[in-house]
Amino acid sequence: MRFRVGTSEAGSGVHLVLGDEAVCLSGLSGAVGADLMGLVRGDVDVASLSDAISRADRVAAASVVPALPIARPGKVVCLGLNYVDHIKEGGYEVPVYPALFLRCQTSLMAAGEPMVRPSCSERLDYEVELMVIIGKGGKHIPEEEALSHVFGYTIFNDGSVRDYQRKTHQWTPGKNFDATGPIGPDVVTPDELPEGAVGLKIESRVGDEILQSATTSDMLWSVARTIATVSEYSTLEPGDMIAMGTPPGVGHAKTPPRWLRPGETVEAEIEGIGICASPIVAEEDLARTEAAE
Amino acid sequence: MRFRVGTSEAGSGVHLVLGDEAVCLSGLSGAVGADLMGLVRGDVDVASLSDAISRADRVAAASVVPALPIARPGKVVCLGLNYVDHIKEGGYEVPVYPALFLRCQTSLMAAGEPMVRPSCSERLDYEVELMVIIGKGGKHIPEEEALSHVFGYTIFNDGSVRDYQRKTHQWTPGKNFDATGPIGPDVVTPDELPEGAVGLKIESRVGDEILQSATTSDMLWSVARTIATVSEYSTLEPGDMIAMGTPPGVGHAKTPPRWLRPGETVEAEIEGIGICASPIVAEEDLARTEAAE
Repeated sequence: MRFRVGTSEAGSGVHLVLGDEAVCLSGLSGAVGADLMGLVRGDVDVASLSDAISRADRVAAASVVPALPIARPGKVVCLGLNYVDHIKEGGYEVPVYPALFLRCQTSLMAAGEPMVRPSCSERLDYEVELMVIIGKGGKHIPEEEALSHVFGYTIFNDGSVRDYQRKTHQWTPGKNFDATGPIGPDVVTPDELPEGAVGLKIESRVGDEILQSATTSDMLWSVARTIATVSEYSTLEPGDMIAMGTPPGVGHAKTPPRWLRPGETVEAEIEGIGICASPIVAEEDLARTEAAE
Repeated sequence: MRFRVGTSEAGSGVHLVLGDEAVCLSGLSGAVGADLMGLVRGDVDVASLSDAISRADRVAAASVVPALPIARPGKVVCLGLNYVDHIKEGGYEVPVYPALFLRCQTSLMAAGEPMVRPSCSERLDYEVELMVIIGKGGKHIPEEEALSHVFGYTIFNDGSVRDYQRKTHQWTPGKNFDATGPIGPDVVTPDELPEGAVGLKIESRVGDEILQSATTSDMLWSVARTIATVSEYSTLEPGDMIAMGTPPGVGHAKTPPRWLRPGETVEAEIEGIGICASPIVAEEDLARTEAAE
């Protein structure tokens, strides 16, 4: 199944995407709720709504304006270095344990919303990543059972402000600027993809300029191993997210560096999941626009 | 004012502490809510409840069993290195920008609840810290206005699993083990403390063994400067928390290392705020206790 949370003429909330069309599930049952948490927690399942879905109004899937799949995830865990060639371009050693950091809510936004280049830096960089949404929670999840804890997969652009990422050894500030981490627009359930979402082409672009292009088979830590690793120290809860790291080709490793510029739109694409497109807007211009509204 | 969120014979929720006694505010007005968020957001102010408070039942303040002051903070930002002598004992350089990381919800618990030594490591360490609770949110908050954004101060023990903290250059795993970060029990408003909460004795102990002892005047980054620094990159929201780093004396820097052991109770104390006491429990024993219940 494919879900898009957002707003359309059919309503606001979770949409089930059926080919080129979509049905708003949130209007069919209060148990669905405004984002994917109801389905993630298992408050309701889509099969129980099948009669209502068949009778419901349909809208063009492309007309659904995306919102965050999970409005307030409990935690967003990110792998820093998970593609060998990206580790080398950053000047890091291949680690024996994943480099993990967290992103906070204020750094995240929906696909299609402005990705904000801050007023304090021009070094806004892109990082296309596979994003895992946890369904069933757990602690000490064995690697061999880990994929049964995945609700679905989506796309993440782990927007990074490089000079702030490296102000100290801890990457947190550069990874947590407001509105630099778009998620979505679609969440695809595991049955629609290869096991562990391997073998998918993963790419980022501005227009016809290809910035990163690789396959998710190049990930050092698989989705299953990552879930096992994180759940050794931290209980995973329904709706938690894990970003699986980015392939080579990021802007700060290019010569000259290739920073995102206001007016551009960066696209992050994963085969079988979709495209997460984000227009780059300068913080100064965003502030002016908001003041004028 | 002094608040303690928790449960007493007077009710469950926010208690106003008046000397040795406490009044449950949550029972007096629905706008108070179950934790401090209602007061932090300004949904209601305590002055408007003064008549009801004067008529309300009082319980012994010590009888209030603490819960988290804010049940689900939007983000918990932590300063890693903020006391010069602690920086030296960890072998780090004095940074020109604060080392910042995030803690997630599952790593936090109330004062008095078990602090869990995980089954995968014996290297559980203590770090007493001043914790700031943001009241009025904001972005680009000037340092000279920053203290007006503080709702109150509490105590944090930034429990750290040292071998996992240093598995890679990113500290996240070692700083985010389940139930290693107690907060509370009391939140004290700024008018009850010196400006910026400086000049307060800060100490951690097990029994009569003093582990850390310093003053908050030794912080390199003041509360005001830290709020300004964080809000340069991230919007601070009401209820967000900032942990201000720990003084020297942590267990991993002692010879031999002084890890927390099951059966001990670690106390984190800050003058004028209170004591955050946590019994250390082995994860294996906690699992057995929960299975038996």
